[in-house]
Amino acid sequence: MTSKQQFVDFFPRLVDDLLQDLDQLEALPESKAWVRRALDYNVQGGKMNRGLSVVDALAVLRCNATGNAAYQLTEAEWERATILGWCVELLQAFFLISDDIMDSSITRRGQPCWYRQPEVGMIAINDAFIVEMMIYRIVKKYFRQDSFYIDLVELLQDITFKTEMGQNLDLITAPEDQVDLTRFSMTKYRYIVKYKTSYYSFYLPVAMALLLAGVSEERAFKQAEAILLPLGEYFQIQDDYLDCYGAPELIGKIGTDIQDNKCSWLINQALLVASPAQLEKLHQHYGKRTSEDVAIVKAIYEELGIQKRFHDYEAESFNTISKLISEADSSLVPHQVFLDFMNKIYKRTK
Amino acid sequence: MTSKQQFVDFFPRLVDDLLQDLDQLEALPESKAWVRRALDYNVQGGKMNRGLSVVDALAVLRCNATGNAAYQLTEAEWERATILGWCVELLQAFFLISDDIMDSSITRRGQPCWYRQPEVGMIAINDAFIVEMMIYRIVKKYFRQDSFYIDLVELLQDITFKTEMGQNLDLITAPEDQVDLTRFSMTKYRYIVKYKTSYYSFYLPVAMALLLAGVSEERAFKQAEAILLPLGEYFQIQDDYLDCYGAPELIGKIGTDIQDNKCSWLINQALLVASPAQLEKLHQHYGKRTSEDVAIVKAIYEELGIQKRFHDYEAESFNTISKLISEADSSLVPHQVFLDFMNKIYKRTK
Repeated sequence: MTSKQQFVDFFPRLVDDLLQDLDQLEALPESKAWVRRALDYNVQGGKMNRGLSVVDALAVLRCNATGNAAYQLTEAEWERATILGWCVELLQAFFLISDDIMDSSITRRGQPCWYRQPEVGMIAINDAFIVEMMIYRIVKKYFRQDSFYIDLVELLQDITFKTEMGQNLDLITAPEDQVDLTRFSMTKYRYIVKYKTSYYSFYLPVAMALLLAGVSEERAFKQAEAILLPLGEYFQIQDDYLDCYGAPELIGKIGTDIQDNKCSWLINQALLVASPAQLEKLHQHYGKRTSEDVAIVKAIYEELGIQKRFHDYEAESFNTISKLISEADSSLVPHQVFLDFMNKIYKRTK
Repeated sequence: MTSKQQFVDFFPRLVDDLLQDLDQLEALPESKAWVRRALDYNVQGGKMNRGLSVVDALAVLRCNATGNAAYQLTEAEWERATILGWCVELLQAFFLISDDIMDSSITRRGQPCWYRQPEVGMIAINDAFIVEMMIYRIVKKYFRQDSFYIDLVELLQDITFKTEMGQNLDLITAPEDQVDLTRFSMTKYRYIVKYKTSYYSFYLPVAMALLLAGVSEERAFKQAEAILLPLGEYFQIQDDYLDCYGAPELIGKIGTDIQDNKCSWLINQALLVASPAQLEKLHQHYGKRTSEDVAIVKAIYEELGIQKRFHDYEAESFNTISKLISEADSSLVPHQVFLDFMNKIYKRTK
């Protein structure tokens, strides 16, 4: 059985736990059924990279701590990492349920968005809240006795808040219905990526693994942050690139960042180097629905050599991050934790 | 200066704190301006009974502990209670911003709901999240050194979750667009009131005051809960009564519970005693918009003597709660804490 399959198979146990927890609140059968459906619908079905990262990072940390490169996590270690991994997935579900409403999205992970289910609608907002609180119910149940319990709670709250602030800047910079490219800038782009994506997707899983491994030095967390945030930025820029230039059969969707007025790396790069005439065309055709509009934007990207800019950025970013890793103090966090991430995402096509 | 005015005057200091906190996240000026506006718009302007309760309850607890009936809170005690009082108001703002979206409400506290402001719309969902997280930023800043810090965080999370589960049952029992009175019942009504309203409005402020007063026995919290939840139920039933029978000039609005298909105490009582013919009429006319529909429902309430049922309930509830208070162990929580609440709400007309 793959480790991913084991991770997936653990989920029903967690749902049963959470449903049992609702008995403490005397929840009525209709509420319990509703919450079960909301959890099943929204938490499963993703790639689970974030959740699995907790398990993978803990495995590296334990290999390193035991000096045994072939060290296998004990059942208890695996379970604790898996539980926190699912907490990251619950956090992600909380964000996605609400992002989909805010973005008026239609589908998510190949099915209609939760808020578009008959009988759900805006109740989805309250469901997002419930999913968020489930994280703290789980953490309390399984980690209340641990010395790092309060650090874990504060970590989750801090990362949640950071993500919300990133989402805020994204929403006010690129409102769906109001195209205004003068609001875009690489400064904002980098802020949005760092806060909205990198913290919870890259830093959080490793920080959780550090806590599980008994690491408490502030410097270790700072070092992880210093490497994982640039890695997250690199990942998001790839995402933006693939949205436009990736093969739909590989990335599993047809990108619509141009139509959706997204504050993407590509448009921000284009804005940096476009001539006045090209700028005017971008202002006119970005964030519009027709294939002609999209084609004009893409043609300008071609004129400006945006693809080459991406490949140059990719090479440079690889060098920068590799250097950050090699210079990092491996007594704080073993390099392998970061190299594993790097190997998974460098030059990915999906 | 009244104590309410002092409480109100403290708010700008808290906002400045919170805005300063955003500098730690390198927040850009547009995000800071947005958050300030969201806080100013949504947290102020209510009756602030919940927030003020923290201060009032702490005053009673300190009088009792010092054996000095004229004891005045020190500046530091007052400030700590005021900060937690504002946390209750922030929690309330978090709920109201999102409730208004879920209920498609038009106005709140005499102004358009936040989500109906130009440029806000569904961004309000993320604003609600930010307001919620502000609570934990404040609590961390001011109470991290206190021995009860983790209890306070868990209390807030637990009450938030309970409120969300109450909201869930309310939403699935009485969806705005689908009238189905067979879903209503006094069991559900009591659950919704207890979880959606009583915990955060009545229990939370007193539990906070107990923590501030250095009380840690579980039994004290249980006793407060045992009295404050029935008190909250009584309060909500009054609210439902006043929605239909209160003087609009006193309650500050024209009630629309009948039109809005609300799972109110009045309709639940009517359903208990209505004849088949009356039931049929209720099914036909409840949750409808025209004044004829409303008049028919109100006429059936008259036929069934719902007003008298309320007055009987009120007398009975007063006796029950008074008995609960007089029998409570005053060494755990002084009776005056509960009597103050009772005096504020018994036979209120607004």
